[in-house]
Amino acid sequence: MSGPHVEFRVDPSGYRHWRLDVDGPVATLTMDVDEDGGLVPGYELKLNSYDLGVDVELYDAVQRLRFEHPEVRAVVVTSGKEKIFCAGANIRMLAASAHAWKVNFCKFTNETRNGIEDATAHSGQTYLAALNGTASGGGYELALACEHIMLVDDRSSTVSLPELPLLGVLPGTGGLTRVTDKRHVRRDRADYFSTRAEGLGGKKAVAWRLVDEAVPRTAWAETVAARARELAARSSRPEGAEGIALTPLEKTRTGTSVAYEHVTAELDRDAGAAEITVAGPAADAPADIAGVHRQGAAFWTLAVTRELDDLILDLRANEPELGTWVIRTSGDARRVLDHDRLLLDARDDWLANEIVLYLKRTLKRLDVTSRSLIALAEPGSCFAGSLLEFALAADRVYQLDGVFEDVDPDADPAAVTVDAMNLGPLPMGNGLTRLETRFLGDGEGLAAVRDAAGKPLEAADAERLGLVTFAPDDIDWDEEVRIAVEERASFSPDALTGLEANYRFPGPETLETKIFGRLTAWQNWIFNRPNASGPEGALRRYGTGRRADFDRKRV
Amino acid sequence: MSGPHVEFRVDPSGYRHWRLDVDGPVATLTMDVDEDGGLVPGYELKLNSYDLGVDVELYDAVQRLRFEHPEVRAVVVTSGKEKIFCAGANIRMLAASAHAWKVNFCKFTNETRNGIEDATAHSGQTYLAALNGTASGGGYELALACEHIMLVDDRSSTVSLPELPLLGVLPGTGGLTRVTDKRHVRRDRADYFSTRAEGLGGKKAVAWRLVDEAVPRTAWAETVAARARELAARSSRPEGAEGIALTPLEKTRTGTSVAYEHVTAELDRDAGAAEITVAGPAADAPADIAGVHRQGAAFWTLAVTRELDDLILDLRANEPELGTWVIRTSGDARRVLDHDRLLLDARDDWLANEIVLYLKRTLKRLDVTSRSLIALAEPGSCFAGSLLEFALAADRVYQLDGVFEDVDPDADPAAVTVDAMNLGPLPMGNGLTRLETRFLGDGEGLAAVRDAAGKPLEAADAERLGLVTFAPDDIDWDEEVRIAVEERASFSPDALTGLEANYRFPGPETLETKIFGRLTAWQNWIFNRPNASGPEGALRRYGTGRRADFDRKRV
Repeated sequence: MSGPHVEFRVDPSGYRHWRLDVDGPVATLTMDVDEDGGLVPGYELKLNSYDLGVDVELYDAVQRLRFEHPEVRAVVVTSGKEKIFCAGANIRMLAASAHAWKVNFCKFTNETRNGIEDATAHSGQTYLAALNGTASGGGYELALACEHIMLVDDRSSTVSLPELPLLGVLPGTGGLTRVTDKRHVRRDRADYFSTRAEGLGGKKAVAWRLVDEAVPRTAWAETVAARARELAARSSRPEGAEGIALTPLEKTRTGTSVAYEHVTAELDRDAGAAEITVAGPAADAPADIAGVHRQGAAFWTLAVTRELDDLILDLRANEPELGTWVIRTSGDARRVLDHDRLLLDARDDWLANEIVLYLKRTLKRLDVTSRSLIALAEPGSCFAGSLLEFALAADRVYQLDGVFEDVDPDADPAAVTVDAMNLGPLPMGNGLTRLETRFLGDGEGLAAVRDAAGKPLEAADAERLGLVTFAPDDIDWDEEVRIAVEERASFSPDALTGLEANYRFPGPETLETKIFGRLTAWQNWIFNRPNASGPEGALRRYGTGRRADFDRKRV
Repeated sequence: MSGPHVEFRVDPSGYRHWRLDVDGPVATLTMDVDEDGGLVPGYELKLNSYDLGVDVELYDAVQRLRFEHPEVRAVVVTSGKEKIFCAGANIRMLAASAHAWKVNFCKFTNETRNGIEDATAHSGQTYLAALNGTASGGGYELALACEHIMLVDDRSSTVSLPELPLLGVLPGTGGLTRVTDKRHVRRDRADYFSTRAEGLGGKKAVAWRLVDEAVPRTAWAETVAARARELAARSSRPEGAEGIALTPLEKTRTGTSVAYEHVTAELDRDAGAAEITVAGPAADAPADIAGVHRQGAAFWTLAVTRELDDLILDLRANEPELGTWVIRTSGDARRVLDHDRLLLDARDDWLANEIVLYLKRTLKRLDVTSRSLIALAEPGSCFAGSLLEFALAADRVYQLDGVFEDVDPDADPAAVTVDAMNLGPLPMGNGLTRLETRFLGDGEGLAAVRDAAGKPLEAADAERLGLVTFAPDDIDWDEEVRIAVEERASFSPDALTGLEANYRFPGPETLETKIFGRLTAWQNWIFNRPNASGPEGALRRYGTGRRADFDRKRV
C-alpha cells in the first residue's frame, strides 16, 4: 500500500488510542490502542502496537501539554493494557507498506520522540516511562525518549529490540543510537541485547542501564507516583500559569492547493513542485508579552508555525511526487522582526519560550524533509529573522537583484535581514545555528554576517555576504528559477534525498543527526533489500511460520 | 558480476596503471590507466577511469612511500594522460557489478584516501593533487583527499561531481563530506556544484574553494614543482633516513584456509565463519629501535599487521558468505607488550611511528568491516596491548573463566592485559580510543580500566571491569560460543551490517565516520533502488542514449 490521505489535525476529544489525564503538576499519557482503529484496513493493532494514526495522537498530546498545560511538570507515559506496555510498530502494517510510507512513518515517529526529549530538556516537562509490562521494539524506543525508565519487576516483563532477530531490520526510531549514545549501554552488551528477541528484564536490565529501575508490582503505583513528583519538583515551570488553547487549525485543501490563514501552497503536479508562500504579520506585534498571552493561538508566530508544521506533514505524507518546495514570503519584514524581538525579550516567559521552541522544531522538521527546498526572495518578501530561517534551511536561495520592471518598477528591491533569531535560539539538529552551519569553517564570513544584523540587505550585499546563492536580475530571473526547478525534477529523487541529507548537515553530529542520518540511512537500505522486504524476506515471512530465506552475502 | 578472486599483494614492478617516481624529497605518482587492464572483462578503463585493480596499486604505492621512502616529504598525484586527470570509477564496471562488489570497492577506495590524509597529517608526507586536466567524480574525490589541489586553468579543465545528474547516485568515496566538512564549500554552492555535470573550473573553482589554485598551463610545471617543494619543506621527516623494504608477503591460500607466518584463517563454510588466529612474537623484541630497523619487514608488529591487513582485504573481497570472524590469539603476552613498548618509546623514530600508524589504520579497517567479530580469549592466548585492540574492536568478547580441564588442567587461565597501546596511540575513526568508545559516558569505568594497566586480568576481573562481554567456564564455554556463532549465521546479514555499523561508533563523529556511516549508508540505499540499478535506472541507462525512467516519489 502507498497509504491513504493522512490528516494530522486531531484533538483529545477524537483520540482513539491515548488518554491524557492531568492531575496538577503530573500528567499521565495512557496508551490504550484500539485494535480496530488502524489508519488503513488490513491489520489489527494488537498488544498496543501502533501505526501512524496512533503516533499522530501522541504528537498532538505532547504539543497540547506544552501549550495548554503549563502547570504540568512531569508526564508519565504508561499503558492501559495488562502485562504489555507497547509492542512497537505494527508488523503487518510495516510488511504491507510501501517503502516511502515506512520511511515517512519512521521520520514522524522520530520527530515526536525528539519532541519529548525537547520538552524534557527545555520546557520543564520531564517524561517518565512507566513500563507496566513488556516494551518491545518501538515500544522500548518510546521509553528511551523518556528521561527516566521504570520497568515492572515481575519475572516476565522485559524491554527488547527484537527487530534484528525477528524481522531482519533495525529498530527504526532511534533505538540503537539512544542505547549507546544516550543511555551509555556498553556496545558489546548492546549487541547482545539487540540479538535477543525476548529481551531483558529485572535487575539485569538495570545493571546494563537499559532501564533506570525495576519495581515490584506491589510497589508499582506508589513508586511511579513518587518518581513523578520528584521529577516535577525539578521543573522551572511557573506556578499558576494559564495555558492557551490550541484552537482548531483552519485549512482548505483542494487537489491543487492547501490554504491556511498565513500560509498557502499551490501544488504544481506538472512541475513536481509545491509553491509555498508564507505571509508576514498582518498587524503590528502586541505591545508586550501579556498581549501574546491574550492573542494565544492567534499570535502570528505561533499561528504561522502551526500552519507550516501541518503543511510540512501533509505534503510529506500525501504528496511524495512534489519533489521540490519553492518557498516565498510576503509582507512587512519590520513586523516579523518586531514579533521576533517580543518573543526573545521574554524568553523567561513560558509561552514565549514554547513558541520559540516550536518554531525551532518545525524548522528541524524542514531540515530532515526529503524534498528539494528552493527559497525565492522577491520584492515584497519578508525573509527576516524567523522567516529568514526558512531560506537558510533551503538548498538554494535566489534573490532578485533589483525589481521586476514590468510588474512594479517602483517597488522596493527584495531584501533579507539577519537578526537575533538567526544567531542562537533556533539551532539545527547538529547543535549549530543555520548560519553557523552555512559558514562552517569560515569564521570571518560568519562574523561579517553578524555585523550586518538588523540591516535589510539587497541582493548584491546578500550575495557578497554569502546569504544567498544567486542574485539574478529581472532579465535572467524567470529563466534561472525555472531551470533550477525543472532540473531538480529531472534528477533521481533518491539521489537528491541522499545529497540533501548530507549537504544540509556538515560539521558536528549529535544523537539527533545520527538518528536521521546514519541510522535512518542504514535502516532504509535494509528496508530495500530482499532479505527484509522480498517475498522470502524476514518482514514478509514474519508470522507465517516459515523462516526467512536470506542471501547470506555480507555487504 | 559478483567479481573475480581478488589479490591485494602487488609491487611497483607489476603496476599497470601507476608510475612511482622519487626525486629526493618529492615523489610523483602518475596515474596512467591501461585501458585494457581491467580486473574483470567487459569494460575498458577509458579516460583514466579506474576499477578496484587500479586502486590496489595506488594503495600499494601509498604504503611503500611511507615505509620504503622516508626521504619523501611531498607526493604529487597527477595524470599521464593529456587533458584528463581522472574520470572516476568506471561506470560500465559499476553498472555491471553486484551490489556487494560496488560497496566493497567503495570501502577500499575510501580507506586508501583516508590513508593519504593520514600520511599527510601524521607521516610528514603531504599529498598534492596536480590536476593537469579534468577531474570528475572519483577523480575529484581523489584530489579532495590531497592537502592542496591545483587545477590547470585552460578554459576546459574542470572539477566535477557528476554522479547525481548523470548516474542518479552519489559520489561514493567521501566527496560530499569532504566538500563541506574539509574544504568548507558553502552548502548551497555544494548543492549547485553537485548538480552541474560539467563541473567548475578556473577562478570560480578557486573562489568556491573547490580547488586551491588555478594555474595557467604555461606556468604549470614550475608552479607544481614550487608548491611541492614548499610542502616538502614543512615536513618533519628526518634527513638521510633509510627505508625498509616491504618484502613480498608469504601467503598460502587453499579453499579452506589462508595462512601467513603469524596469522591463519580457517574458512568454515558450513558455519559461515572464518576462524582467525594471530600468533604473538616468536622471539623477544629487539633491544632497541635500531634492531627494529635491522629486522625491517620481519619485525613482528609490522609483519603481523601486514598479514592482518591482507587477510581482512582478502576475506572482505573474496568470502562474503563468511559472515562471522572468530578471532583468537596465541602466544606470550609479555612479548607482545615488549614489542609495543619498544615502538612507543621510540615514537619520534620515523619507522616506529609508521608501524604504529599502520596498525592504527588496519584496526580501523576492521572497525568498518561488515562482518560480525567475536573474540575468544582462551588459555594460551595473548590479548594484550596491541593485540587486545583486536578484541576491543570485536562486537563481543568471550573469556574462559579458568582452564579447559580436559585439555590442560595445569594451564594458566586466560588473561587479557591493558597497556599503553590501548590508551591513545590507536584511535578509531571517531577520534576516541576503543576503550574510550567502550566506556562512553562511563568515566569511572574507564578510570578503573586505566588503573589496571599492565596487569594480566583473568576472566572474573576482566568481566567486572567491563573488558569482556561474557566469561563462561569450561562447562558452558563450547555451547555458549557455538550458539553465538550459529545464531549470528541465522540472522539477516543486512541487518547485522546496519546494527554493527551503528554500535561500533557511539559518540562523536568525524569526517571519517561520516563517510563510512551516513554517506555510505545513503549511497548503498541509492545503489539498491530501481532508480539507480533497475533496468530503467540511471546507472544502467548511462551511455545508451536513453534517459532513465524514474519513480518520482521522494522517500
